[in-house]
Amino acid sequence: MPNTENSQKPHDRMAAYLAADLEAVNALIRTRMASEHAPRIPEVTAHLVEAGGKRLRPMLTLAAAHLCGYEGRFHINLAATVEFIHTATLLHDDVVDESGQRRGRPTANLLWDNKSSVLVGDYLFSRSFQLMVETGSLQVLDILSNASATIAEGEVLQLTASQDLRTTEEIYMQVIRGKTAALFSAATEVGGVIAGAPDAHVRALFDYGDALGIAFQIVDDLLDFQGDPNAIGKNLGDDFRERKLTLPLLKAVAQADAEERAFWERTIEKGKQTDDDLEAAQALLRKYDALTDTAAAARDWAAKARAALAPLPAHAIKDMLEDLADYVVERIN
Amino acid sequence: MPNTENSQKPHDRMAAYLAADLEAVNALIRTRMASEHAPRIPEVTAHLVEAGGKRLRPMLTLAAAHLCGYEGRFHINLAATVEFIHTATLLHDDVVDESGQRRGRPTANLLWDNKSSVLVGDYLFSRSFQLMVETGSLQVLDILSNASATIAEGEVLQLTASQDLRTTEEIYMQVIRGKTAALFSAATEVGGVIAGAPDAHVRALFDYGDALGIAFQIVDDLLDFQGDPNAIGKNLGDDFRERKLTLPLLKAVAQADAEERAFWERTIEKGKQTDDDLEAAQALLRKYDALTDTAAAARDWAAKARAALAPLPAHAIKDMLEDLADYVVERIN
Repeated sequence: MPNTENSQKPHDRMAAYLAADLEAVNALIRTRMASEHAPRIPEVTAHLVEAGGKRLRPMLTLAAAHLCGYEGRFHINLAATVEFIHTATLLHDDVVDESGQRRGRPTANLLWDNKSSVLVGDYLFSRSFQLMVETGSLQVLDILSNASATIAEGEVLQLTASQDLRTTEEIYMQVIRGKTAALFSAATEVGGVIAGAPDAHVRALFDYGDALGIAFQIVDDLLDFQGDPNAIGKNLGDDFRERKLTLPLLKAVAQADAEERAFWERTIEKGKQTDDDLEAAQALLRKYDALTDTAAAARDWAAKARAALAPLPAHAIKDMLEDLADYVVERIN
Repeated sequence: MPNTENSQKPHDRMAAYLAADLEAVNALIRTRMASEHAPRIPEVTAHLVEAGGKRLRPMLTLAAAHLCGYEGRFHINLAATVEFIHTATLLHDDVVDESGQRRGRPTANLLWDNKSSVLVGDYLFSRSFQLMVETGSLQVLDILSNASATIAEGEVLQLTASQDLRTTEEIYMQVIRGKTAALFSAATEVGGVIAGAPDAHVRALFDYGDALGIAFQIVDDLLDFQGDPNAIGKNLGDDFRERKLTLPLLKAVAQADAEERAFWERTIEKGKQTDDDLEAAQALLRKYDALTDTAAAARDWAAKARAALAPLPAHAIKDMLEDLADYVVERIN
């Protein structure tokens, strides 16, 4: 893809607009990753934080602060906070449970062991907490502590909801609001709060982040069944093999006949899968238009995100945020 | 042991003195453990929080607040905060250590899986964070966020220092200051801070908690080699089998001859242990008076803890804290 076209993406336009701030965020992240006593810490985090992540969440905080006319420096702290929380949850996600090892699936993080992933994640959580305390804003601390609890709750809920065919779309929404949207909405909300924006604007920013996060996660769950492995950066069917009941599966399971129900019980509830099962699952998703319906749900949330921005003043950043909502669902083929 | 003698222990006297507060802390803990969306959370935490832990750390916060004449209610929040942080670190420890027993009961990760231990630990961290934000004290938030980072750093340092015979007593001190003393000192310090105590008193409380925590951990490390398994609530030699270079081992390793060095290299560095090795290790500890020297170090820190309280006003609680310092080292046979 030519670079000129690439630079038209809302994400890249935003990165260019916020380049100086992003530079400051990266410098702060590098400083705070360091540990005098435990040199293994930056070793573990560098591979995640420096691995060319898109910095989407911290960029949302910077964008929200700019959009609300903020002229201070604490949005840098908050953007780094958000990235540290995100990185910590990634590290903890990589922890393998024993049933996972028994299935013999390779893990997301083969470079370090469970011990390092858990403890370095804890270190990043603590560091993120220090970064936000420095802002001196109790409102910000309140928002981010609530978001942290919601994230953890969503992850635990996912543990129990996974592999359980009684899981409903309502539970799925609770899970993705927790594990994904809570950090998106906190990221945009604190940007507005630190800028001292009026309540209606802060609320609009929250709603935008919430809807954007939901759209983002639904697309992610959809691409697991129909994406291009090179583009999505993971293997096709990972969620299916991990027996995660994501939205496409829920839609197909809800309409399953007796024979199909037996298929889902074997592959998802009992976890007895063969190499052909992913293809069979994809065929069932197509049969019930589950992928089309899931794509429609994602587009619906993207539209809600765009609409949420209405109360906010005209601003170059506002246009980029609107376009970002569209772009998130453009990843669907 | 007759109940009358039991009630003479400083820990029990303190619990009796603070009974109403402890009741309030327990009630708050139960409320905040609950999760509307993820019922597995109280299931996992109840096992630890309700398992008859001694509530030593929250009691330190309550005691410090009382000693400084506090009459508000936020010391209840802070005591619950401290217990949640402690419980979260236990949950995460159980993942990383692969230990089979905690407080004489099977660890959470044997009843549940590693992933639940990690995520429920994260939930408790977030909850503790919410509890302290409610106090509205940025100074308290600063202290506890720094303590959290120090705890995580100590745990990571322990990972790298374990199994490495080059570990020094200085590194050992950094590890136990992090993994144990940091929460003790934060617990006493925030009790003083929330009471608005003068700096000299807050400093005294910090020093007391720091020294008490160090004494406590050294005793713990000692009892692993000479304790009564029923009394210490874990198996004798757990640290040795986990190849943790605690103070008794460090003292024996430092004086080892060539043959003994080879023994430590095999059992600790390479982790090749047979059933007889614990007894052989204990014999080497006796040969070099490593247990006696370790006990002396613990008593020294207990004396420092007692002395640290000097600047604080006379108070029934002060006497109990002094006696508690002595009691911690009385656990040594």
